[in-house]
Amino acid sequence: MAEKIIPDIVVGRLPIYLRALQRMLAENRHVTSSQEMGERLGISAAQIRKDLSQFGEFGKQGTGYSIDYLAEQIRLILHIDQVWDIAVVGAGDIGSAVARYQGFANRGMRVAMIFDNDPAKIGSDVGSFTVQDINNLETAVREAGIKVAMIATPSQNAQEVADLLVAGGVKAILNYAPISLSVPEGVRLQYIDPVIHLQRMTYYL
Amino acid sequence: MAEKIIPDIVVGRLPIYLRALQRMLAENRHVTSSQEMGERLGISAAQIRKDLSQFGEFGKQGTGYSIDYLAEQIRLILHIDQVWDIAVVGAGDIGSAVARYQGFANRGMRVAMIFDNDPAKIGSDVGSFTVQDINNLETAVREAGIKVAMIATPSQNAQEVADLLVAGGVKAILNYAPISLSVPEGVRLQYIDPVIHLQRMTYYL
Repeated sequence: MAEKIIPDIVVGRLPIYLRALQRMLAENRHVTSSQEMGERLGISAAQIRKDLSQFGEFGKQGTGYSIDYLAEQIRLILHIDQVWDIAVVGAGDIGSAVARYQGFANRGMRVAMIFDNDPAKIGSDVGSFTVQDINNLETAVREAGIKVAMIATPSQNAQEVADLLVAGGVKAILNYAPISLSVPEGVRLQYIDPVIHLQRMTYYL
Repeated sequence: MAEKIIPDIVVGRLPIYLRALQRMLAENRHVTSSQEMGERLGISAAQIRKDLSQFGEFGKQGTGYSIDYLAEQIRLILHIDQVWDIAVVGAGDIGSAVARYQGFANRGMRVAMIFDNDPAKIGSDVGSFTVQDINNLETAVREAGIKVAMIATPSQNAQEVADLLVAGGVKAILNYAPISLSVPEGVRLQYIDPVIHLQRMTYYL
């Protein structure tokens, strides 16, 4: 049976919906509507209904959505009903901040290891992790079965690190280095570069 | 005369094109093509040509683009022919990493001040900055004429900080706190939340 292909832009909004729902749960709320979600998120209610309808029937006309149920369903869709172990490469400012970041909890992600190539950093502690030698990267991620990684190295090392990660079996890379990387088909790649976001806004100023 | 409205998604690709061009310049390159840019970026050459054509005529059929000229033109379009001073709010791991980030240089951005509400942090140094009291935030950004800010506070403080920034005249906010914010019309808002990017990828795993 052919699976329906969902546009990536729709997939990209699901985590934002989930974050809003989890926040409502933290406020001890249990029912919401596409209108209310839309107002919180600055997305139209019609867009939210349309996006969710691609994955199934999650609410009833007039009674809204059960927040618990909808959050659980989105977690299943995004495959974060499990917790993904993450390898962080680069133990500089950004890598260290990410390794200590509290925002992964209850969101399906957990930093599991951190690597660097600097002898002065290898063996030192970052949060609750000991920085490992990047020479062990490929083996370590393969043996741990790690599929998700973040690159927080200088630009000139980022492609080499991506190649090592892919060789070790990583299938999803979030790249903080300000450079475009190439990865084989079947490996997902996302970028975080604050300057890209800032420049996108200064256009309008 | 009515100005042509450019879709925001097209605006959002210009910084990515510029980053690739600046990298080529750093490699001492001076001519490129939409094909080469496309291969580096994983974007089709046709898309790049179409995007750039929205802003003018930057290359000649058959001779490609002058990298220097195209980069300069994109800088003008994005208003980063000037350097924007940035206020960072929150001097925790992420805010401190951002304040020390080397990646702003030559990209039209410069961190100018950093604030926190923690008496233990106020007055301490982060990189070359002294952490200022958040009680002075609104006045400080107004007096310095700052239009661009980054929020790196806990979620529960982020909306209040956004309100202070807007009151102080800030027009563009990059929010690292994992929560959706609301700002008045005319104020631009972008988000960086690594979990959103990670969840968007685990969908495919």
